Amino acid sequence: MTQESTIQLSLPEGYTFRKLKLTDYSNNYIETLKVLTTVGNISEENFNKLFQEWSQNSHIYQPHVILNKEGVVVSTGMLLLESKLIHECGKIGHIEDISVAKEEQGKKLGNYMVKSLASLAEQAGCYKVILDCSDHNVGFYEKCGFEVGGVEMVHRFFRY
Amino acid sequence: MTQESTIQLSLPEGYTFRKLKLTDYSNNYIETLKVLTTVGNISEENFNKLFQEWSQNSHIYQPHVILNKEGVVVSTGMLLLESKLIHECGKIGHIEDISVAKEEQGKKLGNYMVKSLASLAEQAGCYKVILDCSDHNVGFYEKCGFEVGGVEMVHRFFRY
Repeated sequence: MTQESTIQLSLPEGYTFRKLKLTDYSNNYIETLKVLTTVGNISEENFNKLFQEWSQNSHIYQPHVILNKEGVVVSTGMLLLESKLIHECGKIGHIEDISVAKEEQGKKLGNYMVKSLASLAEQAGCYKVILDCSDHNVGFYEKCGFEVGGVEMVHRFFRY
Repeated sequence: MTQESTIQLSLPEGYTFRKLKLTDYSNNYIETLKVLTTVGNISEENFNKLFQEWSQNSHIYQPHVILNKEGVVVSTGMLLLESKLIHECGKIGHIEDISVAKEEQGKKLGNYMVKSLASLAEQAGCYKVILDCSDHNVGFYEKCGFEVGGVEMVHRFFRY
């Protein structure tokens, strides 16, 4: 039994965790991301282009989703794998854009998503996985096995 | 005059900012990174492999260096460009692994490196550029035009 399938057992019955598919454009993927932040109007053509870019660099971009019993996307999460020189050409994972559909919150789907992406980072040989969050989400990520590592600094060129 | 050349004028006389080259393996690149953290023993073969991976994905990995008057690497910095779906298929930059050789500190090379990478991120169309640092480096990054954006969370699989 793989680590991924072990984790899968702790999802609510009928829910599944898998890689993003091209057909998720019309399967609530974009609507789920809108819970997190501004998404804007994404045409199917632009989604296809982005999906192609992610797929062509699948050793770097690993977007995932959770589906509910009806097969609809209800949670999103990106694992970005970075190859470094430090730590003997070590790799790290960046977790980005975690979102859970409003009507599906309270089922620990976010916890499952974050732990699953961290597990994938570990399997890929990363020595650590990092993410940035706001102060009020620190407790949530501590429950996912993370600890405070430092300060996120930002320089914005455009304010959404 | 490009933005990059404008910035270049503020480096000490004779110093230059450019992309990492394969020949920097034997030009103090690795020694400069050792100021930042554990690097370990990197063979030329392993460096070449990593350089090739970065070069083949040059739309994502943009490693840079500053050379002193003698043409020796004295500062390092990585800009990692990430294509997202949020914010109308927006891009962000991640700044990683900023280091300055000990004997070259106090010349604002780190400030120059960070501002240059941020400028490249803006030119690449990013809506923001982010980085993680320790509490005691917040002031340094504020001088580079950054502000505190959030909390870095980390899950370590291996402790260096």
